Amino acid sequence: MALGLGTGSTAAHALDRLGDLLRAGALPGVAGVPTSLKTELHATRVGIPLLPLGGDGGPARIHLSIDGADEVDPDLNLVKGRGGSLLREKMIEGAGEKFVVIVDESKLVPRLGCTGAVPVEVIPFGAPHTLGLIRKVFDGLPGFHARLRMVKKDAEEDTPFLTDNGNYIVEMFFEDGIRGNLHNISDQLLRITGVVEHGMFLSMATTVIIANKDGTVTVMDKKN
Amino acid sequence: MALGLGTGSTAAHALDRLGDLLRAGALPGVAGVPTSLKTELHATRVGIPLLPLGGDGGPARIHLSIDGADEVDPDLNLVKGRGGSLLREKMIEGAGEKFVVIVDESKLVPRLGCTGAVPVEVIPFGAPHTLGLIRKVFDGLPGFHARLRMVKKDAEEDTPFLTDNGNYIVEMFFEDGIRGNLHNISDQLLRITGVVEHGMFLSMATTVIIANKDGTVTVMDKKN
Repeated sequence: MALGLGTGSTAAHALDRLGDLLRAGALPGVAGVPTSLKTELHATRVGIPLLPLGGDGGPARIHLSIDGADEVDPDLNLVKGRGGSLLREKMIEGAGEKFVVIVDESKLVPRLGCTGAVPVEVIPFGAPHTLGLIRKVFDGLPGFHARLRMVKKDAEEDTPFLTDNGNYIVEMFFEDGIRGNLHNISDQLLRITGVVEHGMFLSMATTVIIANKDGTVTVMDKKN
Repeated sequence: MALGLGTGSTAAHALDRLGDLLRAGALPGVAGVPTSLKTELHATRVGIPLLPLGGDGGPARIHLSIDGADEVDPDLNLVKGRGGSLLREKMIEGAGEKFVVIVDESKLVPRLGCTGAVPVEVIPFGAPHTLGLIRKVFDGLPGFHARLRMVKKDAEEDTPFLTDNGNYIVEMFFEDGIRGNLHNISDQLLRITGVVEHGMFLSMATTVIIANKDGTVTVMDKKN
C-alpha cells in the first residue's frame, strides 16, 4: 500500500505515528511517497520506506494521502502550500484515490484566502512580469495585493524563497477571501505563462478531519 | 523601443540583421529582450543592447517581438518550442503589443501538430507521472503518442533534455494534427499539476510573414 505523505506540522505528527506503527510491524507492505524534501528526510529518519512518484520503482497507485491544510472552506476546498511545497503536494495528493486532510478548527473558513496568503508557484525567469499578470487577474478588487515571498539572505539583504523545484512563490492576499467561481479563477491563473501551480486545492480532499477546541473530532466527507 | 528577440534559425537571421542596423546607427534607442540563453549570447555577440523582462531595469512595454515558428495554422495559431525555449518565448512574445512570425511556406499546416512534436514543458519531479496525465488528455486518439525528450549524455546513456528553466520537455505526436477546440485542450494541459506550459501559441501572432518557394512573400494579419 502506498501513502502520500504530506508536509507541515500536522503531517509531521502523522509521519511520527506511521513510523511507530511500521516499526511495531503493524503496517506490513506500507510505503510512502513524500511531498517535499523535508518530508523525505523526516520519513527516512522515522523508518518509513519511500517510493518515487511514477516511473520505474514508483507505485502503480497511491491509495491514500494524508496532509494538513492552511484553510478549508465549506465545500472542502483548501488553501495549501504556505510552507512552499504546494506543487509536489498537489501532484501526489491529486494522484491518490483518497486524500484525508487533518486540521484544527481554526483552519475552517467561509471562503478561501480569508486568513492569509494564497501561494502561487512561478518560474524565476520574468517573475516580476508574472507577478504583474497575477495582479491583473484580481484588478480592482479592494484590499487585494500580491508580492514575491522573500527570505533573509543575511542581515542586509532579502532573497526570493526557493521551492523544492527551484521556483519562486508569489503570495496573494485578499481582504475578505476569494469571491467568485474558484475553478474559473484557477484557470485564469494557470493560463499565465510563468505560473506553474497555485495553492488552491479544489475538489481534491475526500475527507477532512477537524480537531475541535473542546477535544471532540468532526469528520466531513466530500459530497459526490 | 524594446523588441522581443526570438530563438531558432529564423530568429537568428533577424538578430544578425538587427545587429547590422544598430551598428550602422539606424536604430537609435532600440534594445532587445531575449527569449533564451542562446539568443542572449547571440544578441550580445552582434551588439544588440539587452533588457530583462519586467522588474527593475526591464522595459515598461515590449513594442514588437520577432520569431520563427514550427507550424502555423490558418487562424495564425502556432506550434513553437521544438527547440526547447517555449516558455520564455511565450512569456515575452505574449507580453508585447505586436508579435511578428517569419516562416517559410513549409511551416503552413491545416491543423497544429501535423508535422512533428508539440512540446510541453514539465517539472522534473514526477515527470513520468505527469507524462501519464498528458497521455490521458488524448486517450484513445488513434496514432497519438507522447514521450520525454531525451539527449545523448554519452555513448551509452540518454538523459532528459533540460530547458533554460531547468525543466523537462514532453513531446506529443499526432497522426493527423490536433482536432477539437485548441483553447479547451490548452486548459486541460495547463490544469495538470506538473505541466508548466505548452508549445501551442494560440491567438498570439499578430502578423505572419511567409517566404514562398517562388521567392515571393505573403503577409497574413490577425483578424480582429
